[in-house]
Amino acid sequence: MKAKVHVTLRSGVLDPQGKAVHGSLSRAGYDFIKDIRIGKEIAIEMDDLPREEAEAKLTEICEKLLANTVMENFTIEIE
Amino acid sequence: MKAKVHVTLRSGVLDPQGKAVHGSLSRAGYDFIKDIRIGKEIAIEMDDLPREEAEAKLTEICEKLLANTVMENFTIEIE
Repeated sequence: MKAKVHVTLRSGVLDPQGKAVHGSLSRAGYDFIKDIRIGKEIAIEMDDLPREEAEAKLTEICEKLLANTVMENFTIEIE
Repeated sequence: MKAKVHVTLRSGVLDPQGKAVHGSLSRAGYDFIKDIRIGKEIAIEMDDLPREEAEAKLTEICEKLLANTVMENFTIEIE
């Protein structure tokens, strides 16, 4: 089965990478952009598990390893 | 309006970051994971534009700046 984990910075946290990209776009004339924030999209291929078990295990992995929950939020999407 | 750009590595391209995360998870006992690939999710806030114009401009930005189309694919999602 496949799953996707989306890891995004919490709203109060500064995103220097996004700010840099936003600056580059503005200087290149793309001034319709108001804000850019850059997160991670983690595509996972895994053994077939019952949906609930998969969700529980992925949540555990996210909390322990994939996301820094002090600074980041995550959402899990099972396909 | 808001948009999201998903940037993923093309299927033939090695993903050392994904491989490292996969290795860490395996060593931590999460052996139900078969493969991990890590991409970017770029959240954009922009001026309101007609949907077609927004799509065209975002495609231009992706091709020129946000994605390296030799190695990466991108998809645009307008909210």
